[in-house]
Amino acid sequence: MAEQKWDMDKIKYVGNSSLGSGAEFHYYNPDEVIGGKKMRDWLRFAVAYWHTFDQRLVDPFGDGTAMRPYDKYTDPMDNALAKVEYAFEFYQKLGNDFICFHDRDLAPEGDTLRETNKNLDKVVDRIVDYQKTSGLKVLWNTSNLFTNPRFVAGAGTSPYADIFAYSAAQLKHSLEIGKRVGSENYVFWGGREGYESLWNTNMKLEQEHAAKMFHMAKDYANEIGFDAQMLLEPKPKEPTTHQYDFDAATTIAFMKTYDLDKDFKLNLEGNHANLAGHTYQHEIRVAREAGLLGSLDANQGDKLIGWDIDEYPSNLYETTAAMYEVVENGGIGPRGGLNFDAKPRRSSFEANDLFYGHVVGMDSFAAGLRVAMKMKEDGVLENIVKERYSSYDSGIGADIESGKATFKTLEDYSLDKTQAELRAATSSDHLEQIKDTINHYIVNVLGK
Amino acid sequence: MAEQKWDMDKIKYVGNSSLGSGAEFHYYNPDEVIGGKKMRDWLRFAVAYWHTFDQRLVDPFGDGTAMRPYDKYTDPMDNALAKVEYAFEFYQKLGNDFICFHDRDLAPEGDTLRETNKNLDKVVDRIVDYQKTSGLKVLWNTSNLFTNPRFVAGAGTSPYADIFAYSAAQLKHSLEIGKRVGSENYVFWGGREGYESLWNTNMKLEQEHAAKMFHMAKDYANEIGFDAQMLLEPKPKEPTTHQYDFDAATTIAFMKTYDLDKDFKLNLEGNHANLAGHTYQHEIRVAREAGLLGSLDANQGDKLIGWDIDEYPSNLYETTAAMYEVVENGGIGPRGGLNFDAKPRRSSFEANDLFYGHVVGMDSFAAGLRVAMKMKEDGVLENIVKERYSSYDSGIGADIESGKATFKTLEDYSLDKTQAELRAATSSDHLEQIKDTINHYIVNVLGK
Amino acid sequence: MAEQKWDMDKIKYVGNSSLGSGAEFHYYNPDEVIGGKKMRDWLRFAVAYWHTFDQRLVDPFGDGTAMRPYDKYTDPMDNALAKVEYAFEFYQKLGNDFICFHDRDLAPEGDTLRETNKNLDKVVDRIVDYQKTSGLKVLWNTSNLFTNPRFVAGAGTSPYADIFAYSAAQLKHSLEIGKRVGSENYVFWGGREGYESLWNTNMKLEQEHAAKMFHMAKDYANEIGFDAQMLLEPKPKEPTTHQYDFDAATTIAFMKTYDLDKDFKLNLEGNHANLAGHTYQHEIRVAREAGLLGSLDANQGDKLIGWDIDEYPSNLYETTAAMYEVVENGGIGPRGGLNFDAKPRRSSFEANDLFYGHVVGMDSFAAGLRVAMKMKEDGVLENIVKERYSSYDSGIGADIESGKATFKTLEDYSLDKTQAELRAATSSDHLEQIKDTINHYIVNVLGK
Amino acid sequence: MAEQKWDMDKIKYVGNSSLGSGAEFHYYNPDEVIGGKKMRDWLRFAVAYWHTFDQRLVDPFGDGTAMRPYDKYTDPMDNALAKVEYAFEFYQKLGNDFICFHDRDLAPEGDTLRETNKNLDKVVDRIVDYQKTSGLKVLWNTSNLFTNPRFVAGAGTSPYADIFAYSAAQLKHSLEIGKRVGSENYVFWGGREGYESLWNTNMKLEQEHAAKMFHMAKDYANEIGFDAQMLLEPKPKEPTTHQYDFDAATTIAFMKTYDLDKDFKLNLEGNHANLAGHTYQHEIRVAREAGLLGSLDANQGDKLIGWDIDEYPSNLYETTAAMYEVVENGGIGPRGGLNFDAKPRRSSFEANDLFYGHVVGMDSFAAGLRVAMKMKEDGVLENIVKERYSSYDSGIGADIESGKATFKTLEDYSLDKTQAELRAATSSDHLEQIKDTINHYIVNVLGK
Repeated sequence: MAEQKWDMDKIKYVGNSSLGSGAEFHYYNPDEVIGGKKMRDWLRFAVAYWHTFDQRLVDPFGDGTAMRPYDKYTDPMDNALAKVEYAFEFYQKLGNDFICFHDRDLAPEGDTLRETNKNLDKVVDRIVDYQKTSGLKVLWNTSNLFTNPRFVAGAGTSPYADIFAYSAAQLKHSLEIGKRVGSENYVFWGGREGYESLWNTNMKLEQEHAAKMFHMAKDYANEIGFDAQMLLEPKPKEPTTHQYDFDAATTIAFMKTYDLDKDFKLNLEGNHANLAGHTYQHEIRVAREAGLLGSLDANQGDKLIGWDIDEYPSNLYETTAAMYEVVENGGIGPRGGLNFDAKPRRSSFEANDLFYGHVVGMDSFAAGLRVAMKMKEDGVLENIVKERYSSYDSGIGADIESGKATFKTLEDYSLDKTQAELRAATSSDHLEQIKDTINHYIVNVLGK
Repeated sequence: MAEQKWDMDKIKYVGNSSLGSGAEFHYYNPDEVIGGKKMRDWLRFAVAYWHTFDQRLVDPFGDGTAMRPYDKYTDPMDNALAKVEYAFEFYQKLGNDFICFHDRDLAPEGDTLRETNKNLDKVVDRIVDYQKTSGLKVLWNTSNLFTNPRFVAGAGTSPYADIFAYSAAQLKHSLEIGKRVGSENYVFWGGREGYESLWNTNMKLEQEHAAKMFHMAKDYANEIGFDAQMLLEPKPKEPTTHQYDFDAATTIAFMKTYDLDKDFKLNLEGNHANLAGHTYQHEIRVAREAGLLGSLDANQGDKLIGWDIDEYPSNLYETTAAMYEVVENGGIGPRGGLNFDAKPRRSSFEANDLFYGHVVGMDSFAAGLRVAMKMKEDGVLENIVKERYSSYDSGIGADIESGKATFKTLEDYSLDKTQAELRAATSSDHLEQIKDTINHYIVNVLGK
Repeated sequence: MAEQKWDMDKIKYVGNSSLGSGAEFHYYNPDEVIGGKKMRDWLRFAVAYWHTFDQRLVDPFGDGTAMRPYDKYTDPMDNALAKVEYAFEFYQKLGNDFICFHDRDLAPEGDTLRETNKNLDKVVDRIVDYQKTSGLKVLWNTSNLFTNPRFVAGAGTSPYADIFAYSAAQLKHSLEIGKRVGSENYVFWGGREGYESLWNTNMKLEQEHAAKMFHMAKDYANEIGFDAQMLLEPKPKEPTTHQYDFDAATTIAFMKTYDLDKDFKLNLEGNHANLAGHTYQHEIRVAREAGLLGSLDANQGDKLIGWDIDEYPSNLYETTAAMYEVVENGGIGPRGGLNFDAKPRRSSFEANDLFYGHVVGMDSFAAGLRVAMKMKEDGVLENIVKERYSSYDSGIGADIESGKATFKTLEDYSLDKTQAELRAATSSDHLEQIKDTINHYIVNVLGK
Repeated sequence: MAEQKWDMDKIKYVGNSSLGSGAEFHYYNPDEVIGGKKMRDWLRFAVAYWHTFDQRLVDPFGDGTAMRPYDKYTDPMDNALAKVEYAFEFYQKLGNDFICFHDRDLAPEGDTLRETNKNLDKVVDRIVDYQKTSGLKVLWNTSNLFTNPRFVAGAGTSPYADIFAYSAAQLKHSLEIGKRVGSENYVFWGGREGYESLWNTNMKLEQEHAAKMFHMAKDYANEIGFDAQMLLEPKPKEPTTHQYDFDAATTIAFMKTYDLDKDFKLNLEGNHANLAGHTYQHEIRVAREAGLLGSLDANQGDKLIGWDIDEYPSNLYETTAAMYEVVENGGIGPRGGLNFDAKPRRSSFEANDLFYGHVVGMDSFAAGLRVAMKMKEDGVLENIVKERYSSYDSGIGADIESGKATFKTLEDYSLDKTQAELRAATSSDHLEQIKDTINHYIVNVLGK
């Protein structure tokens, strides 16, 4: 048996047994069928290359603390190539079916894009080889158009035409890679697409440029026969003071304004939702009701902290709520999955913390799926909702729905109703009972 | 001379003279022409009935502290009718050209809508009379569909058809009043149009109902020949946990989804902007670039406070930024104005504080207009912006703008550019210099 | 059998059986012994008079929605006296052992304090009678020095000496009532003790006055032989812009500055903690480590909402964390308990929602106690902590603890240690594993 | 004439003349006497080494954008030594009288502390030389105990005794350097002194360790005759989830608990204040009224952004408020000054932006000083405050102040006062008028 690159055994499903070591699944049983589909097909877990293999656990006040088994490779290309091997053993041991990456996660930049592409292609060759033997699929790839100083004022929205041009060129190759690795989606997160100050910004022009870039990308993907679902990823205010794709609704306004809502959908993240003042469930609901739910980034914020911390998800209330929306949607978008855009704390810096983090994250979403599915099957919430809006099923409500009612007919209907009659038309929503019900389901579906 | 109802002389423009008593204008000189228009026509100040005449300065922990000269009228209808007289003397002394009100601000509710309308009509008769003698115009009127317990779960979005019906009936009469008083705009703020919990909410159905209500309202306005500009007013999260019209962008998404963007525009408020995580300038910019700027609610939030406090505006940075957008827009929307949706603190409870508050508010916006206009005339910021995007005027930038560039031509252009060449394509935005410039303009335009 | 005042049967413990109706305890079994004490003695649940019986579910944008069975009593004193009967039947059905109230919760104010006290005494007489037959105890009483407009600028910190005087007089009678009803604690929450603006505030003088009032209160309590534990309750920024007792640490600084830390302890609330940017657990930890944990207000905030919403607690993570601190402390303060400073949503306005809310709250804290106790018994977290700090048990660590080490000896010890040696002295905290452990305990202790 | 290292002329005071280039002082005239002291002695401006010379303008999503004239020095020690020369030319051109630095700002680390100290001493030698010729003083120095991964879980509060030992040793040398360069203060900012999770933290033990470290530092400073004022710097929640020195009040509680309030004072920062939910003025007021104002870090946050952005101060409201407190205090602490803990935006990356940033910062504080001093001289606010609390000067108020009043005498005084009498004892604070006054002063003191 070959030497292990990671000091960890394959993570196994052991059921909800004793506490364990944090390196077992208690809820994620990939081939178990639930609600007519295998768990792996509901969840489609992806490991993010950047946070898992590149992230050094730096913060604005401290150097990276990460200890990784491939730190011994000091030449950048050696390190990049070695990392692929480590990555695929990691995937095999963790049991995710999908992977995600930015172009710049994989290989170092050269002095020109030509050199950079060359570096990148070497690493992609190795990834393609490993895909063949492992069966791993790419949930999505994307292009890093925010780290390099040249993107200081944006990529597609840069005030500098040369940077727009370079971004388009970088994106072109990234789409070609997407085709080679068979990405099911292609994601755009505009890390620098926003403004620092409105005093020196032509916001409309910048947004027109962004839209132009998206259209060109879709056109080029079509041209080369890369049929991934295109996805935009909202985030409100980091790193730029104001990011254009603030949240799901803002991004939908943008998509509708620039005729992108046919070809693009949304990739939504929990921590980003919180930074915009929303719950994760809210963002998913907004997208799903608009028919624009594409894929999910699985992580968790700390609502008392004002920046993106990308914790591994562990809050069962949040995973249950997210999975409830997914169950209602019949799945996560047309080809979506759950990508762990999540990293260990700076204080959990050992290599195996990468496993512990993914395990608690995968298990929390698997648990959420189990709870949500049982609630769906029992119809408890569905019945509450159905009953709550039932006055629109007949009588004046049906007239409103059908368009038969007018301001005049509604005035006739209402003019002599008393205060007491109108109060009697409303009901308590018994929200405290509903919270008790959620607790009941979480504890009993999982603890039994 | 008739007895004065308010113990205050008419507020006069005295120029930027000595400190004064807080009851003089130092910057608002209504008939002074600036940028080709009278100040009164740029600013179109409106006094809000609810905060000025009805507000008791209650908060969740305390009873109202307000002391008002008409508190002696104890019968509700007597009080309502007397208040009109007090209001019009107030307007005359303050010098605003416009007023705004909800239906329920003016008169008490009866047990049925029929009775309520009767009460209301009596008060509106008196307003119409006073309009004739005073020349005061109505910037907008609106309908209060949130205070009464019947609206506990919404009006247009209520799960209860009878409440939708009642809301439509109330709205109908409010539109008829709008026509009578000659409102230039009609505003919809959905105080209860949102959700407490997603677990029991059919968000899509509720939003469809809201859209239906808006369409019905516009249709009825057309039917009766009431040609006010229809306006939606965004607010993110108070009173409901999540309000549907979260911010300008969210409301634009809603308008586009439900085909309301032709007939409706936006009424934007500073404090609401802050609660959504935005600056006031941001919200105005979003609306203006979308061609949807309708009108402005003038107030100020405390960004360290998490709820709507509706302070009178006094921050010259914020009024300057807001007026800069207005100057760029050529005015506040087609028929917009600045309505003071603002109230005194609970601790400034005397009658004359209503004057002091409006004076600092009007003067701060007048000051902002003077500063913004001078910056515009000098072209300082305009030149910064023009220069910043100038690379799109020729060469590869012009190819991008014209649509001539493709991913392939841009790749050819970029493939061999070095890191250093690309860095050199970007420039510092010297943001700290710009802040110095803003300070310079505020101090020198106003202080000289 | 007498007619029931509330349409609800006595709430019973049924164990973690089927879902039920929201009107059964699944975890709160009052006489069950856990960790050496009955659950009722660990938890000492109190019902808050104000939110339960007086709260009309008003918000700044809407009238009260509450429907209560005693609304039929229209005369204020009749209503006040009837409410006592309703309250005691409510307690009997819910099964709380304690009650809490402000003076002004119980009876209406007269035109003078003399009349007000008279009204109050009548109601207190009835409460004392009911206490005898029911055995209900008063966890704490307090004085409402914030609702009446006279307290607009504070009570103990009022700039107006007459208001300080009046507050002292009101407080005097409140302490006398505390003695009559046998209050185990006496709480001071300074609803108006803070400032709106520093420009017109002598903060130091105001804080000296507050301290003076607290000393006078303690002296008077001693004088009349009322030996309740005195408690201060922190809250950061509502209703005043800045409240002096911002959080636990700020209040401790105040107590130490004014020599109040011997006689006073803290009453801490979850929602207040969140508004200050802290977790509830944090506030309890700060107080417990300072030896100043007095009592707890049990409620829950929404961290995406910027004001006090006083939800009934239902989040098992938060109740577990709070109870973990309580278990570590050996109980909630010397005579503390869990008072539900919590109210239904405006949308859950029926009388029985008061039961549902308390049931989910009591059960969530009972569940938290069960989980925390099991974690304590298993020593899982204790061992992690012990191990984490073990380097201070011997060698250089022991020298540091004993005071033997000096900067010079520590320099000698450290001067030639390499970067690698120093890194090796630290360990990952495996925080993601710990979160997995918390989930495991919640689900398995409760679900089995 | 020697070649210029920075492409900038000496910044001159030109008065409030025309707009200029952002490289002139309009308000800072160092030797102008105002309120009995030279402006330079009121303000005591310091340039921070880290943000000015070391900061690469990195953020969590992007590499550093900074372009600095000494980037050509690639060897770390060459670069460190060259930077000193650049720094002193920068100071000479800017005109600051003071400097501040961390030990690690100046020179690279070696593999052991011995080597690190050796590197550092070489650079300090050069600084000392430059001090002689330039007359520049050190406002404060400090030790960086947070960047290196060894401090992942704290320095003084580290769970690992070896790290505590190392921190003490590093601190020892930093104090020795303080003595050599004649630092007037010595600052402790505990970048890692806090917790990530309470589940694995012994907070009390950690705080005891921190206190021990502070006492040891003071003792050692005394031992070597380094008589700088010791200062603690509060910050609430970055980089650790919870920092122990949350804000001024929390730090005061800590100082009082561990007997540090005699020897230590506070160093307060505007952006840190905002992150804790406070204004800068609030933090300064808290410290000054406690007699613990030590020094000030001059910067500005964006209250809509949830992390530390360290903008150069430009908001005249904030600088006026800060300087008002300083004027009231008779100066910034015993030996305090204004240190610019501020950096350019990532988008203002050119070398000269360092000048523009400091110029707007220095000028904004100089402007604030002018406005505050004029307000003080005119006594406008002082009179408002005096009048507001005047009821404590005689009668019952005087009895309260003197301690003559008791609960019984105050009850006698209050028992028969009517509601109306009590209302009449309070006054409106006319807060809106005060805001008008502040605007008036800013505009007129500066614009004339």
